[in-house]
Amino acid sequence: MGEILAANNRIAAANREHFQESAVVVVNVMGSPGSGKTAVLETTAQLLAGKRHIGALAGDLATDNDADRLSAAGIIAKSITTGSACHLDAEMVRRGLETFPWRALDYLFVENVGNLVCPAVYDLGQAANVVALSVTEGVDKPLKYPVMFHRADLVLITKIDLLPYLPDIQVADIVDALSRVMPIPMFCALSARTGEGMQSWLEWLRRRETGAIDDLARRAAAHVV
Amino acid sequence: MGEILAANNRIAAANREHFQESAVVVVNVMGSPGSGKTAVLETTAQLLAGKRHIGALAGDLATDNDADRLSAAGIIAKSITTGSACHLDAEMVRRGLETFPWRALDYLFVENVGNLVCPAVYDLGQAANVVALSVTEGVDKPLKYPVMFHRADLVLITKIDLLPYLPDIQVADIVDALSRVMPIPMFCALSARTGEGMQSWLEWLRRRETGAIDDLARRAAAHVV
Repeated sequence: MGEILAANNRIAAANREHFQESAVVVVNVMGSPGSGKTAVLETTAQLLAGKRHIGALAGDLATDNDADRLSAAGIIAKSITTGSACHLDAEMVRRGLETFPWRALDYLFVENVGNLVCPAVYDLGQAANVVALSVTEGVDKPLKYPVMFHRADLVLITKIDLLPYLPDIQVADIVDALSRVMPIPMFCALSARTGEGMQSWLEWLRRRETGAIDDLARRAAAHVV
Repeated sequence: MGEILAANNRIAAANREHFQESAVVVVNVMGSPGSGKTAVLETTAQLLAGKRHIGALAGDLATDNDADRLSAAGIIAKSITTGSACHLDAEMVRRGLETFPWRALDYLFVENVGNLVCPAVYDLGQAANVVALSVTEGVDKPLKYPVMFHRADLVLITKIDLLPYLPDIQVADIVDALSRVMPIPMFCALSARTGEGMQSWLEWLRRRETGAIDDLARRAAAHVV
């Protein structure tokens, strides 16, 4: 396992260097199956149409469903079918980029396999880790999957349009759990369906273009975007 | 990997033999984080209070939250904390049972780590695989995680009380996807919160006590409980 991770990290470092040379903001988007990763990217593309060039690599065990949905939303998208692998690794991303016009992009989203455990371990060369967490998943998931949330730069608390129908779920409780496992808690609460909260997420992305978010994060530990 | 699985399968076979000797129905409950596994077991315990002896082993990377919830619902529960492991294996279950009064149970639920990929590969010695799939997860998850659903004996379509607020989600579409990957599609659509649909699930469990479900499944391929 140590050797596999070391080999992965070498490829990830090369990926990262290429991404930085071309000034492409690369975000590793993780989360449970059905946490709303694809929906957030669809709405992101709609809101940024004509303003940013957006691409996506969509990792899945099977089907091109996500890549098809992302393409329909105006994203230059390609699927990476993993077969039985429960996560993407740096080599899959490297190969996926070979025939993909990523250098002209502003944002490249790597939508990982839906899984709150394994993807957290593999560096892909991304600039940031974003974890989508649906309010329907309950309030204690950060505590139960601490590795994933510990490595998250930003958590998107998704599907907040469903909160009125979830009497036991309070965003404050989710945030409390996040604050126990994220070194620098940062989150956006949003609904891809209604658009509520999407502007904070877009602002976070915009700040990544200049690297300003890193300073911001260091200064504003425990604050909300 | 082949050797690891072979060793796992030997321990699982021994577990299975012990379960059958003691006539305990053992169900491996799998599903995404937040798919409602624990909630279904809580309501199951409430509905069967005084009628069946129920126990549970709750697998999680961290916390005893699920075991605590299950205990509060009247289930004899114990947590198996996996650390970084993304699934339970037969040896974890074997060890978990050493100090657990499982022989007097009617039903033993092994609540696996929330993960639609890895747990499907490891036999624990269970009599049946049950997968919880929340309606909030979208309709295409069976197609995107085919290994998990291929190995499911029963799928619990959970949180149906939220359907009125999910205009894009139809149970018929989820069932269509299930029918493409399950050798013998069988499902219960239910809400642990309202209790709707729970009786079908309890009936499925009851039939497992005599093994009748196997014949039923063979005869009624593609039928619904």
